[in-house]
Amino acid sequence: MEEIFSRNGIKLAWENIEYDEIQDDTTEAISMRSCMDLSGKVRTPFFLEDTGLYIEALNGFPGPYSSYVIRKIGLSGILSLLTGQRGAEFKTVITLDSGSEYLQFTGILRGSISMEPRGSSGFGYDPIFVPEGAVKTLAEMSLEEKNAISHRSIATGKLISYILSRESKDKFQ
Amino acid sequence: MEEIFSRNGIKLAWENIEYDEIQDDTTEAISMRSCMDLSGKVRTPFFLEDTGLYIEALNGFPGPYSSYVIRKIGLSGILSLLTGQRGAEFKTVITLDSGSEYLQFTGILRGSISMEPRGSSGFGYDPIFVPEGAVKTLAEMSLEEKNAISHRSIATGKLISYILSRESKDKFQ
Repeated sequence: MEEIFSRNGIKLAWENIEYDEIQDDTTEAISMRSCMDLSGKVRTPFFLEDTGLYIEALNGFPGPYSSYVIRKIGLSGILSLLTGQRGAEFKTVITLDSGSEYLQFTGILRGSISMEPRGSSGFGYDPIFVPEGAVKTLAEMSLEEKNAISHRSIATGKLISYILSRESKDKFQ
Repeated sequence: MEEIFSRNGIKLAWENIEYDEIQDDTTEAISMRSCMDLSGKVRTPFFLEDTGLYIEALNGFPGPYSSYVIRKIGLSGILSLLTGQRGAEFKTVITLDSGSEYLQFTGILRGSISMEPRGSSGFGYDPIFVPEGAVKTLAEMSLEEKNAISHRSIATGKLISYILSRESKDKFQ
């Protein structure tokens, strides 16, 4: 992200702050609440980013609990839950506190869950996620290939467009 | 619970309050934080109760997310995750705000996950949980049988002992 931001002439710094997230079925609600909780504790503008994998046949599981679930049952656990339909999507939600309002920017990558893990780049669920129209899993792609299509890139692109747009420019410089 | 309390001469009332829970790997931490968040909003003494199923072969999954997980992948999902060892435990954590301090009371029921769901009483994971030393699942037991051994009964019993104990009696009456 730092690289994408600097390419656009925007300076980004990472604040290493621990905070609690609430439990909720949607990444949007969790991220919004975290952003509100951090307001006043972090200099504005600031944003936070959350990503989850939503598997259709599992009613959106593991969703907001993606990192907990992979830690507990692993990719093999996820694969053993799937017997039929394999459609899924990655969703990144960025919540921005601009100083005067909260805004969310979402990036979705549609795809499907592979039959077995493939590839070693990336992290998390990348080895079992095949983007729509692709043959390789995210973990078989180079960082450049992945960045060209990823949910995180899409959400980041929306955030940067917003920052660069005329009416918001004043607030950020 | 109301019944157990009234049997011991303690009046119990249920406050219907919505509150957010934090994400954490332990029921203890989630419950403690909720209790602290509710302090000042609920008349003391008050307590809250949380129960989770911890499956050993799944590193404690679904744990604090038990109700989310059953809603998403169901009992069949849990069963398909288990191929070898089937040991598990139910854990109930009660956190009490006595007015002057926070106290936790824990009840654990050891057992194992059955090969398929059996029985129709109880709720949640009861149809796939066989208590240690039992043949029936919790869902095949009567409420009396279940109450005699359950994690919830154990934790409640500890709470009641505490309330009835001499030094705490004053605080509660």
